[in-house]
Amino acid sequence: MINVAILGYGVIGSGTYKVITQNQDIVKGNAGDAVQVKAVLDLREFPGSPVEDILTHDFNDILNDDEIDIVVEVMGGTGAAYKFVKASLEAGKSVVTSNKALVAAYGPELIRIAREKNINFMFEASVGGGIPIIRPLISCITADEILEITGILNGTTNFILTDMYEEGSEFEPVLKQAQANGFAEADPTADIEGHDACRKIAILTALAEGQFVDFEDIPCRGITGISAEDIAYAKALGKKIKLLASTRYSGGNIYSEVSPCMIDSSNPLYAVDGVMNAVLVKGNMLGDIMFYGAGAGSLPTASAVVSDIVACCRHMHENIPVRMDPEKLTVHDPAELKDRYFIRVSADADIASKVPCECEITIPDAEGEKAVITKAIAGAELKDLEGIISCIKVR
Amino acid sequence: MINVAILGYGVIGSGTYKVITQNQDIVKGNAGDAVQVKAVLDLREFPGSPVEDILTHDFNDILNDDEIDIVVEVMGGTGAAYKFVKASLEAGKSVVTSNKALVAAYGPELIRIAREKNINFMFEASVGGGIPIIRPLISCITADEILEITGILNGTTNFILTDMYEEGSEFEPVLKQAQANGFAEADPTADIEGHDACRKIAILTALAEGQFVDFEDIPCRGITGISAEDIAYAKALGKKIKLLASTRYSGGNIYSEVSPCMIDSSNPLYAVDGVMNAVLVKGNMLGDIMFYGAGAGSLPTASAVVSDIVACCRHMHENIPVRMDPEKLTVHDPAELKDRYFIRVSADADIASKVPCECEITIPDAEGEKAVITKAIAGAELKDLEGIISCIKVR
Repeated sequence: MINVAILGYGVIGSGTYKVITQNQDIVKGNAGDAVQVKAVLDLREFPGSPVEDILTHDFNDILNDDEIDIVVEVMGGTGAAYKFVKASLEAGKSVVTSNKALVAAYGPELIRIAREKNINFMFEASVGGGIPIIRPLISCITADEILEITGILNGTTNFILTDMYEEGSEFEPVLKQAQANGFAEADPTADIEGHDACRKIAILTALAEGQFVDFEDIPCRGITGISAEDIAYAKALGKKIKLLASTRYSGGNIYSEVSPCMIDSSNPLYAVDGVMNAVLVKGNMLGDIMFYGAGAGSLPTASAVVSDIVACCRHMHENIPVRMDPEKLTVHDPAELKDRYFIRVSADADIASKVPCECEITIPDAEGEKAVITKAIAGAELKDLEGIISCIKVR
Repeated sequence: MINVAILGYGVIGSGTYKVITQNQDIVKGNAGDAVQVKAVLDLREFPGSPVEDILTHDFNDILNDDEIDIVVEVMGGTGAAYKFVKASLEAGKSVVTSNKALVAAYGPELIRIAREKNINFMFEASVGGGIPIIRPLISCITADEILEITGILNGTTNFILTDMYEEGSEFEPVLKQAQANGFAEADPTADIEGHDACRKIAILTALAEGQFVDFEDIPCRGITGISAEDIAYAKALGKKIKLLASTRYSGGNIYSEVSPCMIDSSNPLYAVDGVMNAVLVKGNMLGDIMFYGAGAGSLPTASAVVSDIVACCRHMHENIPVRMDPEKLTVHDPAELKDRYFIRVSADADIASKVPCECEITIPDAEGEKAVITKAIAGAELKDLEGIISCIKVR
């Protein structure tokens, strides 16, 4: 019998409890031993819930319980979560987390402690929810020089952009609707400004490189500036606008960013709609591979958490090597790279004389203006352009 | 230094050599030791090629070389390949193969020998080419009851169906063109009749269940009967026809088949075109996840082979548990399940009185006939219908 404690009985914590109990035979078969939830930490009470009798308000009850082998941190944040995770690891308990903020901030330290204690710190659920991406990145894509990792890593923004595309709506009313439906949080800033996706691409890049990536080094632009007209243009061009979190390798440098981009139907990410997430990895031998699935939600995310618990059980006192050296990786600004850009200007602007353009387009939905797609140019070349209504990278 | 021997210097064998040599620093970093190709077995000579000096025509040179730790079998077939793989494992050498016919026929025995010898028999490249699917299925999807595994597992047929869809062409000329372009073999039977996809879904099902699946038990229909009219109807219905290799779980039974199916754009497999492959896995907690990539080709397949070599290096004298018990799994005929069917009949046929239908459609491309989509019915209900021009499952 392997005993698990869950820190936080919210959306993912309750999902984790449900997966462990409802799929207990499957989990036992894969883990090699029965797995049970012995304690749940939460400041709230849950009278009548299945965890009522195992609930504690004191983390020390868990930390000092030698029968608890694995601690699942699904509280979120980097305050108490960090303290509890670190203490658990130092006490020789493996830790599984879905907390991208924690991994993005303290990954190298927590991975090191787990290695020193010969236990495991696992975080499959921190990126892409239920999509297996962290383990495949570490254990499957081992023969390739990675050329690019690009993901749709935030379900809320993808839901909003999909809805704007399908309904022709503006950002604000769609956001309000998403909040009403539970697809966006009351304070949606972390999602719509791209901060959530930014932490996730920082984690993926750090794992690909084996070195810490500071998400604050990554240029990050969300989707609040995307209008119904931008999307109408995209549609007319046979494209969609997606919030891409992307790392590209070029000339020995690493370029990361989070940015809304126009992509066309030849890109496998084009068909990733609604709350679904996907990660595209380009290898020098593999070409493009893509991992697709539910990027959030209680049960899919909990499924990834429990798959990490299973891995911890299979390797109970054996550290599975994960490299994330603490020295910060230098991440360059992709404005140095040559990309194409979609640019809207007023109808009388003479943009073609200022930047080399591939095509010019007008649409009935946007009177008095026009748009161009530039040839591949460095982002810096756009700096002095005046009168731009909007500018979106074309990938 | 870890020494590898490659059996067969064809498309995948030469790709494997290229990945190992060209990405040697990456492979060394991931494997924990340098990997070199010490010998290549082939009956042919390759004068002037990089393997000229390490070529042998005698398998015993490899079998008896104690310095060779890992044998890569990329010859294909189940004759010499089986003999050589078995002998290598019995001699204590780990084996990596891309040979789906070998795994589908002898998987349980070869996995058992590897376990007994505390080495590894790995076959990531046998299904889905470069797509990581076998390792994720074994090591990532461990918390879910699997409800369905459905794949586009053959690049040749997907290329043909995509071309027929885009060009409105008939099967035969597209096949000829695919052969001319190298996307179909001179004898295309194994691909176009579905035999290749059938072996692959047998392997995936066997791994999901931990038990041998005989591909001969799986009803298998290829794409030779698909006409330009079928595809024109599909288009008019907003659907595509894809060759799906599929295992579904229902009422405690397992239903497998290979069959052309109509799918619509809400299915993630809809966007998988050309030579690309993808595998959709449905879990009771995860929902749908999909793995997408190049299902064939020298370098993508070789990348999967080399990722298996890396895994063998990391676990040199440690068997990574894989379950495939020899007792044959009972696979049921999906005709017992209720599915919807697309059925073409002559314009005056009274099909709606014989099977419950969802819709009826006529298209200009097919005069004198009509088509229906039935409600969900057991396949057996279609047995006595007369005058059917074609019948395709709708998924």
